[in-house]
Amino acid sequence: MQPRDGGDGAAVVGALRSALGDAVSVDTGVLDAARADKSGHRSQSAPLAVVFAASIADVQATLRIATAHRVPVVTRGAGTGLAGGSIAGAGEIVLSTIRMNRVLEIAPADELAVVEPGVINADLNVALEGHGLWFAPDPASKAISTIGGNIATGAGGLLCAKYGVTREAVLGLKVVRSDGALLELGHRSVKGVTGLDLTALMIGSEGTLGVIVEATVKLLPVPSGTAWTIGSWFADVRTAAAASAAITAARARPAVMELLDARAVELIGAYLGLPAQGGRAYLLVQTDGSASESEAALAASIITELGGDASLTDDPDAGERLLSIRRAFHPAMEAYALVQAATGTGSVLIEDVAVPRSRLAEMFDAISGIESRHDLVIPTVAHAGDGNLHPNFLFSGDVVPDRVWSAAGELFEAALALGGTLTGEHGIGLLKKRWLGDELGSDQLALQRQIKDVFDPLNILNPGKVFP
Amino acid sequence: MQPRDGGDGAAVVGALRSALGDAVSVDTGVLDAARADKSGHRSQSAPLAVVFAASIADVQATLRIATAHRVPVVTRGAGTGLAGGSIAGAGEIVLSTIRMNRVLEIAPADELAVVEPGVINADLNVALEGHGLWFAPDPASKAISTIGGNIATGAGGLLCAKYGVTREAVLGLKVVRSDGALLELGHRSVKGVTGLDLTALMIGSEGTLGVIVEATVKLLPVPSGTAWTIGSWFADVRTAAAASAAITAARARPAVMELLDARAVELIGAYLGLPAQGGRAYLLVQTDGSASESEAALAASIITELGGDASLTDDPDAGERLLSIRRAFHPAMEAYALVQAATGTGSVLIEDVAVPRSRLAEMFDAISGIESRHDLVIPTVAHAGDGNLHPNFLFSGDVVPDRVWSAAGELFEAALALGGTLTGEHGIGLLKKRWLGDELGSDQLALQRQIKDVFDPLNILNPGKVFP
Repeated sequence: MQPRDGGDGAAVVGALRSALGDAVSVDTGVLDAARADKSGHRSQSAPLAVVFAASIADVQATLRIATAHRVPVVTRGAGTGLAGGSIAGAGEIVLSTIRMNRVLEIAPADELAVVEPGVINADLNVALEGHGLWFAPDPASKAISTIGGNIATGAGGLLCAKYGVTREAVLGLKVVRSDGALLELGHRSVKGVTGLDLTALMIGSEGTLGVIVEATVKLLPVPSGTAWTIGSWFADVRTAAAASAAITAARARPAVMELLDARAVELIGAYLGLPAQGGRAYLLVQTDGSASESEAALAASIITELGGDASLTDDPDAGERLLSIRRAFHPAMEAYALVQAATGTGSVLIEDVAVPRSRLAEMFDAISGIESRHDLVIPTVAHAGDGNLHPNFLFSGDVVPDRVWSAAGELFEAALALGGTLTGEHGIGLLKKRWLGDELGSDQLALQRQIKDVFDPLNILNPGKVFP
Repeated sequence: MQPRDGGDGAAVVGALRSALGDAVSVDTGVLDAARADKSGHRSQSAPLAVVFAASIADVQATLRIATAHRVPVVTRGAGTGLAGGSIAGAGEIVLSTIRMNRVLEIAPADELAVVEPGVINADLNVALEGHGLWFAPDPASKAISTIGGNIATGAGGLLCAKYGVTREAVLGLKVVRSDGALLELGHRSVKGVTGLDLTALMIGSEGTLGVIVEATVKLLPVPSGTAWTIGSWFADVRTAAAASAAITAARARPAVMELLDARAVELIGAYLGLPAQGGRAYLLVQTDGSASESEAALAASIITELGGDASLTDDPDAGERLLSIRRAFHPAMEAYALVQAATGTGSVLIEDVAVPRSRLAEMFDAISGIESRHDLVIPTVAHAGDGNLHPNFLFSGDVVPDRVWSAAGELFEAALALGGTLTGEHGIGLLKKRWLGDELGSDQLALQRQIKDVFDPLNILNPGKVFP
């Protein structure tokens, strides 16, 4: 890695302006917005400039200037990340792909679409209406996050147990390298094994290997039949977790299976003005496709056998009411944090561990232990079908306090001990890099750094992110 | 890359014997077998030795010796590859994983299995009986090929359009590096995005990056319901290809959709003693799962509308008879090649291009043109659901003649021009490396070589394969 210049920001901005004109912003508000994402974290100072690229050529021009000046580039979509991967600070260029928002092609016969990186996830599904096809990756942020960002973080969502993770939905990518060269990776065919799979390597690489400027994504047929929804209450989260595992073990494959622990239920109830549930946990199941009704009946019978109190419906409005409890999770957490903060702001650190499905109950136990030991409130929602938990650490103030990080460290340790991972779908970014080696081990970490060096010999692509 | 020693084979074999004893074979027959795979290609001379590793430690010991002596290592499973990736020659150590054939764990609740690389694909599915789960990657070689080999080549099969490619079925890998160090990649959870996805990078890397010594694979629920099978005849292959595309476009998702062109039908008919079909093509469709019956009815109606003559059944024996025509493809090609060879052997070069599904008919046209121009017989079977074609070049003798390679070169060019790929599921190996740059481009090829160097700085892992 070469030393960075970064000394002459004015020269860098000048070079960007000469090449890119009005696409370059140094507006204070614009620069300030790029200091944060949805994690709640902020960088200490503003970046040099934000380039709003409108084309691949704009991205290439930006990277050539960055290479010439040895200046770091932080690629940014909608800035909805939860791990700080797109946060920029002093001496850095922000490369925004938000204006590269065209759906370039929908090929129904080949069940694929070609999109620019700034296309909002949900907008692609709007564009697909009438084709009987949809794009399955479904992060909770889908209404506001970009497909480029989804791919860069390996975003997941609620539907992964049935419909797969983002890695399974990407056939090919165009990527601009750190020196401005354009790479075309992958293929338009369903199959293809020519050479090393660099498409897969790019997915989840969080802006450290190159800039995704175009994606060829796989589409799926829209599920047939009527969706069925089950809302169910359990005396404790362990039994609810056991029920979700039993539903999977019975080989049902719900589209959605979401679990809220008692603490989450309590805060959501307060937020929505619902009757108190007395420590009960909530399991939401939704089935779709041609086996929807029989799978829902099977899931309901398993829930009932395990002592759960289930409501089952195929009425869309009633289903929506059962879903609304889950949907209220994030607003309820934010409202509670705000009220609890005696002064200043109430904040939420949204964590993202994943464990093998069979270890879900144990992970809830571990979270409960961490809550007690650290005197914290950690309401948790889990994508129970795939073992991905989002413990929400509530605290006061703008900056995550050390005691919260210390508790989060125990959370990561517990997930790894159960055969799990630090991050199921949010990425490492800035906020988890100090734990990266705990999961990868030092040999693999060294190897990953070497691969990073191959792609980015000057270390100008999102430096200081992912790798500690 | 360092120069290879290779000068003192006796010292290498001595070192292997000291470390590994009887696991090391220099038996002439054993060495000779490692000179070939199922591609029909043979190396010019025998390798130094075959190590039959029984453990990860054996693999590590072999790699340490190979590193110390700068001797190439060719990893080999069952030797069923079709691109020469596991063929070994002078001065090389063959590292066989065929004795590492234990299913280490079946975790039904987590829907995964942990296997050694030498487990035969079909044997895993036997081991899974009773769990309601199966391992979906389904290469035609599944009865004889290993899971390690399937992963190393990114093997596909008949079921990929519905059940995914091998890349989607692998959660984690243990890999021994060129210096003998053991890496643990990936995770046991459904989701996981910690660091770069080196698991995906290993899939399809054909022994050039490391030796796969353990795999954690994803299992799927066994489809419910009765399978339906449709055998259908079309006046020409273009219409049959259009029918397969229309079935996909109607959003049906058959498990199997196989297309035989007229030349293939003719040779199979001669082999099985069936009535002549007068130039007709055969489309075989099989549906499964809860929508099996309705999907089969939909497919049959599309076939009929397009002028096809369809037989539809849910009787297993009748379905098997419809399938048997497809199953006879490879034996029929071999029998024909043998008869045609005036003297010596008749041989078959099985090619493996893939195109976007919508371009299937055009690819058949291209094959027909190549047949005429080069005066060759190229019967073709296609996995029509995913656009993967296997044109079979029939010729006399042991070695693929230049005129056949020249025709194959035109085939690759045509596939690339249609937005396709050189290889859908067999890999590049030895036989296609001269075309690798045509698909990847020189920049990506250089990048891929740099990544290879990171994993294998001495260039001892399957050197001369994949990379030209």
